[in-house]
Amino acid sequence: MTDAADLAARVREGDLRLHELDDHADADVAAAARRLLVESETGATLSAVGDYGFPAERAESNIENMLGAVQVPMGVAGPVPVDGGAADGGDGDEGAYLPLATTEGALLASVNRGCSALSAAGGANARVLKSGMTRAPVFRVADVIEAEALVSWVRDNTDRLIEAAESTTSHGELLDVTPYVVGNSVYLRFRYDTKDAMGMNMATIATEAACDVVEEETEADLVALSGNLCTDKKPAAINAIEGRGRSVTADVTIPREVVEERLHTTPEDIAELNTRKNLVGSAKAGSLGFNAHVANVVAAMFLATGQDEAQVVEGANAITTAEVREDDLYLSVSLASLEVGTVGGGTKLPTQAEGLDVLGVRGGGDPAGSNADALAEYIAVGALAGELSLLSALASRHLSSAHAELGR
Amino acid sequence: MTDAADLAARVREGDLRLHELDDHADADVAAAARRLLVESETGATLSAVGDYGFPAERAESNIENMLGAVQVPMGVAGPVPVDGGAADGGDGDEGAYLPLATTEGALLASVNRGCSALSAAGGANARVLKSGMTRAPVFRVADVIEAEALVSWVRDNTDRLIEAAESTTSHGELLDVTPYVVGNSVYLRFRYDTKDAMGMNMATIATEAACDVVEEETEADLVALSGNLCTDKKPAAINAIEGRGRSVTADVTIPREVVEERLHTTPEDIAELNTRKNLVGSAKAGSLGFNAHVANVVAAMFLATGQDEAQVVEGANAITTAEVREDDLYLSVSLASLEVGTVGGGTKLPTQAEGLDVLGVRGGGDPAGSNADALAEYIAVGALAGELSLLSALASRHLSSAHAELGR
Amino acid sequence: MTDAADLAARVREGDLRLHELDDHADADVAAAARRLLVESETGATLSAVGDYGFPAERAESNIENMLGAVQVPMGVAGPVPVDGGAADGGDGDEGAYLPLATTEGALLASVNRGCSALSAAGGANARVLKSGMTRAPVFRVADVIEAEALVSWVRDNTDRLIEAAESTTSHGELLDVTPYVVGNSVYLRFRYDTKDAMGMNMATIATEAACDVVEEETEADLVALSGNLCTDKKPAAINAIEGRGRSVTADVTIPREVVEERLHTTPEDIAELNTRKNLVGSAKAGSLGFNAHVANVVAAMFLATGQDEAQVVEGANAITTAEVREDDLYLSVSLASLEVGTVGGGTKLPTQAEGLDVLGVRGGGDPAGSNADALAEYIAVGALAGELSLLSALASRHLSSAHAELGR
Amino acid sequence: MTDAADLAARVREGDLRLHELDDHADADVAAAARRLLVESETGATLSAVGDYGFPAERAESNIENMLGAVQVPMGVAGPVPVDGGAADGGDGDEGAYLPLATTEGALLASVNRGCSALSAAGGANARVLKSGMTRAPVFRVADVIEAEALVSWVRDNTDRLIEAAESTTSHGELLDVTPYVVGNSVYLRFRYDTKDAMGMNMATIATEAACDVVEEETEADLVALSGNLCTDKKPAAINAIEGRGRSVTADVTIPREVVEERLHTTPEDIAELNTRKNLVGSAKAGSLGFNAHVANVVAAMFLATGQDEAQVVEGANAITTAEVREDDLYLSVSLASLEVGTVGGGTKLPTQAEGLDVLGVRGGGDPAGSNADALAEYIAVGALAGELSLLSALASRHLSSAHAELGR
Repeated sequence: MTDAADLAARVREGDLRLHELDDHADADVAAAARRLLVESETGATLSAVGDYGFPAERAESNIENMLGAVQVPMGVAGPVPVDGGAADGGDGDEGAYLPLATTEGALLASVNRGCSALSAAGGANARVLKSGMTRAPVFRVADVIEAEALVSWVRDNTDRLIEAAESTTSHGELLDVTPYVVGNSVYLRFRYDTKDAMGMNMATIATEAACDVVEEETEADLVALSGNLCTDKKPAAINAIEGRGRSVTADVTIPREVVEERLHTTPEDIAELNTRKNLVGSAKAGSLGFNAHVANVVAAMFLATGQDEAQVVEGANAITTAEVREDDLYLSVSLASLEVGTVGGGTKLPTQAEGLDVLGVRGGGDPAGSNADALAEYIAVGALAGELSLLSALASRHLSSAHAELGR
Repeated sequence: MTDAADLAARVREGDLRLHELDDHADADVAAAARRLLVESETGATLSAVGDYGFPAERAESNIENMLGAVQVPMGVAGPVPVDGGAADGGDGDEGAYLPLATTEGALLASVNRGCSALSAAGGANARVLKSGMTRAPVFRVADVIEAEALVSWVRDNTDRLIEAAESTTSHGELLDVTPYVVGNSVYLRFRYDTKDAMGMNMATIATEAACDVVEEETEADLVALSGNLCTDKKPAAINAIEGRGRSVTADVTIPREVVEERLHTTPEDIAELNTRKNLVGSAKAGSLGFNAHVANVVAAMFLATGQDEAQVVEGANAITTAEVREDDLYLSVSLASLEVGTVGGGTKLPTQAEGLDVLGVRGGGDPAGSNADALAEYIAVGALAGELSLLSALASRHLSSAHAELGR
Repeated sequence: MTDAADLAARVREGDLRLHELDDHADADVAAAARRLLVESETGATLSAVGDYGFPAERAESNIENMLGAVQVPMGVAGPVPVDGGAADGGDGDEGAYLPLATTEGALLASVNRGCSALSAAGGANARVLKSGMTRAPVFRVADVIEAEALVSWVRDNTDRLIEAAESTTSHGELLDVTPYVVGNSVYLRFRYDTKDAMGMNMATIATEAACDVVEEETEADLVALSGNLCTDKKPAAINAIEGRGRSVTADVTIPREVVEERLHTTPEDIAELNTRKNLVGSAKAGSLGFNAHVANVVAAMFLATGQDEAQVVEGANAITTAEVREDDLYLSVSLASLEVGTVGGGTKLPTQAEGLDVLGVRGGGDPAGSNADALAEYIAVGALAGELSLLSALASRHLSSAHAELGR
Repeated sequence: MTDAADLAARVREGDLRLHELDDHADADVAAAARRLLVESETGATLSAVGDYGFPAERAESNIENMLGAVQVPMGVAGPVPVDGGAADGGDGDEGAYLPLATTEGALLASVNRGCSALSAAGGANARVLKSGMTRAPVFRVADVIEAEALVSWVRDNTDRLIEAAESTTSHGELLDVTPYVVGNSVYLRFRYDTKDAMGMNMATIATEAACDVVEEETEADLVALSGNLCTDKKPAAINAIEGRGRSVTADVTIPREVVEERLHTTPEDIAELNTRKNLVGSAKAGSLGFNAHVANVVAAMFLATGQDEAQVVEGANAITTAEVREDDLYLSVSLASLEVGTVGGGTKLPTQAEGLDVLGVRGGGDPAGSNADALAEYIAVGALAGELSLLSALASRHLSSAHAELGR
């Protein structure tokens, strides 16, 4: 720790800057030095943050200016049988265990209760129905006449854009390029199959190569590699409508007796509540999310499996439907833009990799993309369990505590 | 571990259920038993997850069915001077250090670069301009005639609703109740001052008490304690317009030479890029987020300080503006619905509490609410730094690597 | 016509400009001259346009550069009994006749069929639940610190703004002023009771006077008298949520036998269709309109009664709900932002005034505002009839023609 | 009129119903009878409404239960040179005259002033960049597994859908079919080239035929021929993003001296105002319309040319951009979903046909579709003129009257 103390002193004296510490010590010592410096500057104690369980260098591609780690409680819900397109949870056994990390009391219990009810109904279905990671650069042209020419050029030269884009990646495929014009700004939305990677970086690098071709061959000037029609990490109708990452639906038909005996409510009450709250209420609120708390499950499963927490934003673009069908309850959750990967990013970190292992989806799938598809399906089933549980709790209120009231 | 093994065996044999383990062992042993069970059922190894640094019982109000913890790398950006309404970072020293936890490489570096530029400009301003946590139950009435009567009753009896709501809380204050009618559904949006708590639970409990009064005194039937006009954890215009939690703005005027020399671009280029990407691009995308990557900073600072990750959704309801003002760059970020607290929820966990200490905002503030206000202002400044850095990187592209290209 | 020919020649020779013709002839001769000029320049014949049925000078405050008039077929639906807050259609007789002007075949028939079914159910309820015309200027301030000061000033000086605003109008009342801040732009949304006037002009003039006070007393500079948070003639969530003009709901409970015998469908089928189409479909489309074709009725009744056709945009912010209630069908339509007046604007023109007379709401009401309220309620009932008819037609398809299929 | 009086009496006595009058008299007599009946029932006088200038039978496909006609003042703005893809206004002469019908004083003057400035700048560009009328039925399936099968079937059998759809029309072409899934609801968005027709009826009839094939060949049940992803006559992001009808942009570069001398403002002030009002203001309002008053021009030109007034709703999905470019002002308006036709609907009525003649676009174009394209371009140029004029008026305020203040 002497090293760390020396280094912290040098930062304090202005001899070094915080982000230069990695050039003068190994990653763990640099982190220790940073903690010392921040402790002395702020009066905070950072012993818990410094008590992390992996070599700091393993996180080198995940963070800069590392101090240590935050620890978020992780639990498990399930098991729940899943009939998925890629997810095979439930084949010959009791189903999948869903890992969730959260600090919000009652969430795990709520999802777990939902999983029980899904199991009693024989399990849930889940399917990825559309897939594709997008990046949409914005170009400036002279006027609408030039915009029209650019749009035509793109339509006629998609092959060249594919060639340029795919030259940068061994896995990714450019699926299509859709132009949008607003005045003298032209947005080209590139959509990729990024297999088991969430794919934002892959898409960005590939799109940059394609942009070079556009600039060489047309009058257009690139203004920004992202023009917000991607749309990354902002709530946006374009994602809710056209999808981004995986568009995935989970559904189930639950026998009336399961609803009544386990969930203490009726299919009719859940359907009415879903309509007044998730459909009409969200409509009146001007919302892109027509659900009860899908984001809770998305955030917790993202955290447990090393996904990008900021993309919880798009994960909340979900619609929950409930209806009485032949006396039973049909319930579905459709997540339009769930951006997930099982390789790269945070998935390589020790605890997150273990989270993926719980689902059996760590690393590249066979065929490529199937692990990420399966992860999306498991998250959708978790969301379905969460919706079922909270809607039931709300419908059967007169409970003894607020936590119970919330169903989470 | 014998205990744990025994318990795991009992679960496997159907003698116990996963969530009943806490009744038969202390929290750490129960977690160990769950790990053993999940390991044997799934083939996963959970040693990293089990290597957490706090007594499991400390997380009892944060999670159920605990396995252990996920560890997310945490770093620091700054220092950055902040002229806040509550935040006092920068008084007599170099400013505040911003804690961020993330797995997305380059994010810390990007925010740090932004902080440097803000510092070179003398620091950033930040103000909480509106505040209030909301909960909006939905009631069913017979028809619009009864809806009109209910709306009148609420207007005439707000005092009674306040009395009932505030009887459940020692801190919270009911600020107002706004009715919205759609057919025979009436939504009452209760807005509270919840001081330093994020306040969702407090608001829910208080609203439940008020709902009892409504049901007793009127013809209305409560359908659900949340009718989605709250709107919690869904992207919604009502939050983007009227605010939820804290509505907070950070801004700065950056001298042209700082923009040119440190950020390698110009005020003009950043202003143009902001217009084409963050304003026009988001407009065309049907977005509620008119910014570049505010959600990245919100997610990372939420994680580092024990906030609710699912509320990153609303945190993305932000508008970034950029303009050339007397030759310099004016830049602002306005976050409409940032829901934060410095007491309760995840803020009590060891690493998260240390994250709050880095900012000097752990626990209740003096006056009450000032710590949560300050936290909101620091996050807004972090978002401002992130926007500045990414916009600059995009504007000054022709960089050598994709990471640099991303500015994060 | 000699005069007209001479004048047209002078325009052709560049001696006069089109809009100067009114200075050289009476309004009808000026219009004739314009027709001659446009006919000679374009080859069009304008005899039908010239065959209008009112002195051109009566339209002087309605149009400039007048050529003549367009004639739009006008019909009537009903009668339909209305239990309104202001509308008294149905008192002691068969109810109200609804005037509609349109060129879209089958619309009148559809609304008429809906009115018949409403009548068979004993008529519809309608209530204006909120009211207020808005105008929201945008001010520029130095930074968020000055923004905070402006917001405080407005809160503390609302009385002065009321005084200034109301000094410009004998009828209007300023109800409240709500500030919204985005960076260094501050929007103040002024909301007025404009009685029987639609009120856009009144609100604009009054707001301008209030803006003068703001500029005198604060550091803020007015950028534009409308900053788009009004929001006039653009689809906007702020109107769908908070209302503009009249927020009005119409509803009805229709006995099952009426649904089955007259509409050839069932309450269950209509409820399902409404959910899949108007709620879930609109949700997926990213829509602010959760209805089938409310805009059709709004546009047609606006045209027949001299309203501002561009405000049909906000009129489409409507939510239709349908549910089975004790075996019968409950149906409602809630229009959030219906901007109507019975004085001023197009209401003075001969055919439009007659349209208002059909409803008994021409001119100022007693009490003031009651005629415009009643007009809003009649339009809501018309919209309800239109929804009922189209939903029924869709639900009972296998019809013999496409028109019938459309139910309009 | 004796006939009419007799018929009215028979209606009063319950012997006939209003809509049966056409079976007992010619269209004009039936209308007269209806006027008599409505006059006696309501106390209104309908002489102006009865003073219409065309044989009532000419409106038989436009309206039912006809009383007469409403007369809306019609004027003309321009001339303005247009460089269009289909519009040829300006070739070798002064440009196009734009017909507008409205009752809102100052609108014509405002558009006319804008046209003058556009002319001084050499005229405006306009291009239709995308085209297609849509209809999106909704089907019910059992669950997401069946939804996946349906989506696959549609992809594999698009040829059969095209064949069925095109069997119903001699002109229309089915361009593509896009599936959207929400739970067990599947929406198929059919997009057609409807040439010079607005095309809603054509698309509906063709889609119905295609739906028959879907129902025969798959497990899906048609719930409604329109599932609201079309989206017709509701504000919807799907239209604002993907377009409906014509997606058309008009733009212009206006020399600084024209801005200063004619419009009494500067390019800088207009650009700032556009950003604060049309971009940031609309963003904060949760709007799909990022413009000042495009709907005014769309409504007025729709009325003057026989378009469907309810489709003004989608016409307001427009984005206006303004920037200083090499010292001059660049201004654009992009209308995403302008639904227009030059054949069918209201275009056949006498005054409306004359309105189309003023633009030289009555009837079918050569090539097919070119007249409707040209009409869209002219409306876009009118909208551009209107935006220019209002933005200028707002920017150069301190005017002498409120009307002038409004710039319209």
